[in-house]
Amino acid sequence: MNFRLVFYIISYVMRYEGILMVLPVLIGIGYHEYREAGIFAGVAVVLLLISTGIWSFLHKEKRGHMKLREGYFIVAASWFLISFFSAVAFYLTGYFPGFADALFEAISGFTTTGATILRDVEILPKSVLFWRSFAHWFGGMGFLVFILGLMPGLDGSDVQLIKTESPGIAPGKLVPKLRDSSRILYLIYLAMTLVLAILLLCTGMPLFDSVVNALGTAGTGGFGLLNDGIGGYHNVPAEMIIAIFMLLFGVNFNIYYYMIKKQWSDVKENEELKVYWIVVAVSVVLIMINILPLVGGSWFESFRLSFFQVASIITTTGYGTADFNLWPSFSKAILVLLMFSGACGGSTGGGLKVIRFMVLFKSVKRELSRILHPNLVKNVRIDGHVLDSKLVHSVQVFFFAYMALIFGTTLIVSLDGFDMQTSFTAAISAISNIGPGLGAVGPMGNFADFSPLSKVILSLLMITGRLEIYPILVLLTPEAWKKKDF
Amino acid sequence: MNFRLVFYIISYVMRYEGILMVLPVLIGIGYHEYREAGIFAGVAVVLLLISTGIWSFLHKEKRGHMKLREGYFIVAASWFLISFFSAVAFYLTGYFPGFADALFEAISGFTTTGATILRDVEILPKSVLFWRSFAHWFGGMGFLVFILGLMPGLDGSDVQLIKTESPGIAPGKLVPKLRDSSRILYLIYLAMTLVLAILLLCTGMPLFDSVVNALGTAGTGGFGLLNDGIGGYHNVPAEMIIAIFMLLFGVNFNIYYYMIKKQWSDVKENEELKVYWIVVAVSVVLIMINILPLVGGSWFESFRLSFFQVASIITTTGYGTADFNLWPSFSKAILVLLMFSGACGGSTGGGLKVIRFMVLFKSVKRELSRILHPNLVKNVRIDGHVLDSKLVHSVQVFFFAYMALIFGTTLIVSLDGFDMQTSFTAAISAISNIGPGLGAVGPMGNFADFSPLSKVILSLLMITGRLEIYPILVLLTPEAWKKKDF
Repeated sequence: MNFRLVFYIISYVMRYEGILMVLPVLIGIGYHEYREAGIFAGVAVVLLLISTGIWSFLHKEKRGHMKLREGYFIVAASWFLISFFSAVAFYLTGYFPGFADALFEAISGFTTTGATILRDVEILPKSVLFWRSFAHWFGGMGFLVFILGLMPGLDGSDVQLIKTESPGIAPGKLVPKLRDSSRILYLIYLAMTLVLAILLLCTGMPLFDSVVNALGTAGTGGFGLLNDGIGGYHNVPAEMIIAIFMLLFGVNFNIYYYMIKKQWSDVKENEELKVYWIVVAVSVVLIMINILPLVGGSWFESFRLSFFQVASIITTTGYGTADFNLWPSFSKAILVLLMFSGACGGSTGGGLKVIRFMVLFKSVKRELSRILHPNLVKNVRIDGHVLDSKLVHSVQVFFFAYMALIFGTTLIVSLDGFDMQTSFTAAISAISNIGPGLGAVGPMGNFADFSPLSKVILSLLMITGRLEIYPILVLLTPEAWKKKDF
Repeated sequence: MNFRLVFYIISYVMRYEGILMVLPVLIGIGYHEYREAGIFAGVAVVLLLISTGIWSFLHKEKRGHMKLREGYFIVAASWFLISFFSAVAFYLTGYFPGFADALFEAISGFTTTGATILRDVEILPKSVLFWRSFAHWFGGMGFLVFILGLMPGLDGSDVQLIKTESPGIAPGKLVPKLRDSSRILYLIYLAMTLVLAILLLCTGMPLFDSVVNALGTAGTGGFGLLNDGIGGYHNVPAEMIIAIFMLLFGVNFNIYYYMIKKQWSDVKENEELKVYWIVVAVSVVLIMINILPLVGGSWFESFRLSFFQVASIITTTGYGTADFNLWPSFSKAILVLLMFSGACGGSTGGGLKVIRFMVLFKSVKRELSRILHPNLVKNVRIDGHVLDSKLVHSVQVFFFAYMALIFGTTLIVSLDGFDMQTSFTAAISAISNIGPGLGAVGPMGNFADFSPLSKVILSLLMITGRLEIYPILVLLTPEAWKKKDF
């Protein structure tokens, strides 16, 4: 392993985390939370000191080339480190019962899961609330992508890192340099977040809440400011705006670039986008009909709840306006299916992604056709293009690995004695970076009562899910650590 | 479609079902159940009349060659028909509230699922009880395989049918002719069933019960004679004998042929067999430790329950000696995982089969290794042999289709308003041909309260699972019905 390069990049990650922690410090000062401001400032100073120490050692040395395993290691290590230092800050505030809890909360933030171990979030200081949701925003699009855009070029090594951190089966290059593409996407992301915050402000939501909820929505995170979630504002226009933006942040960001560039044919030909909107529409209608008796037959109320919850779950955001734990089984089953599907590749959402399901369903179709005509060569096509058979294979293996991780985690978590629904949906929720599940981890529940072991396992699963499994699994193979290649 | 050939073979299926219905007629007469004996005799006569009618029309005509789609159609149609006529007999006895219930019970029998819609099985006449369990035995090894062994040769077309009906990823040829292999396997099956019945008799179990339970165990079915299942006999030696035989019937039958032929190297090299026993041993030990407090700390009692239940679930038999619904979540989670795995390919058990999981885990390993070394060609090997990449691909698609069917069925069944655990495990139980699930369909529950729609969907899923998905899915594609190929 080329540790020079690894530490060099990690020093930048720590530096930028330190710099960005100035934000909660300022907010803390603004809201007279001097204790918390001091804690964030302290952690920031430690980050900057360590970072400068590493950097002054390494910045002039020859760094060498980055191999794939180094790329994976850098991404994984950065995600653990950035969460670790946030957890230190959280833990020092005293609002988290143990360090495992603080780490769970930090990882839940950066991975945009939004699952909390807190029973009462309303007692948290504003600076802590802000940093929790800022983590969503920063992790949603990928913080390495952000940092790489600011640090000096890496002679092409950054391409590997960007690919590893970006969700979806094949991150598209919009412009010849992937680095430039990432910058464009980040600008779109920033602009959309700002528009959302302004719109929320217009509905009468307080400034702080508008900004924080915009950050959480953009990253498809889900940490709330109120114990009752977004429903606690009793602000229907804000709910609808958030629901629409959740869905927009679940779209592949390349689509927005195409729209800006007026490349309408690329937008129209995108099959994933069509399937995504169809799935959303069908789910909203089915749930709307199913929960109608629960809301006294009011179609408007039924649409309001169904639309928000479908948007929240398919984009893996996890905001709540209703306790869907109390909904009929059929509606709950639809939501669980949406937990698996997730939103589009190249969005800030988690889950398996619509595009992977399309590849999987198309490979079933191809298999059936191959059984009937064994000599006919058929390919899986997306948007009219033939997919490389290795990619199709990789998606199939991905699906199995995803399910195996969910079932394995369910098994371990079930040692805590929760019912199967709770353990199973907690695992799906973690790997798909959603937030709520069903049962004890439903929208009105939390992860407080899990054992430290379960909290650690679920935290690991969140990072594994956010980085789309392979980087973490590869690092767990002995092959990745064989000396001869180091 | 070559309907001449289809009807020709189906006429034999009906004829043999008619002939075999003499068994419940005799049992009915023996136990003075003249009404039921009359019903079975009536259905048998109808079957023989229809069969002879078709046969006398077709037996002298040129039948032509069998294409794959015809093979699939014949197998699927035979399974539906044989179940349909059994359902007619069941329905006429008056013990089943509706025809959907009778059909569910018949399909549950032949597919070796063993799920019942009856709240009280002890009131059933012996002839009905016998036929329910005989269906397990007949469907377990495949009744077409049996019938093809008795009817005149089909110029090689029977190979296709045998392959379609036999579970596992690649039915092995023991001797040059697959037809002869099937006969050998059936003889081993019959011999093992007889040995089991005799052993049960020796434990003091009544003759009728010994025979019927032996039939159910051999087919890995699960229909019981008592409402409390095998536990109702309070006969520990019988329980242990049944548990051991369930596990033996979960082994690939080729292994027994190798043992008879003293081909010990083939037995030793069989990786699936090793993994199967390891999974059984680990599961038994984990559950044994987990349920120890429930049985007052008695290791013997804990082993007795754990061993029986693990054997019953992994082989997808579904017999019960304990209500594992009341066990701790961890034990239930293990049992659910075993429901997915099922036993070995080439056994009478259902589920995904251990061999498929081995292929899937090995393809994850290969994928990780391919990520690290993109230019290295690696193959998936089983028993030292390289698996064809098409077969590996087919297993991966199979896994996705399996999961998609389970989740799709869960969605439809959840319309009945049962909790997610019940709907989900009912679907797994149906496709894996197990019998019990958890919640309302747990070992002490039944499928009585499902709607007719759910009963029909679950029945279809049982046949789809028993025939290992592809034959049914292929018949559902428009491609299979294109005129030009007929």
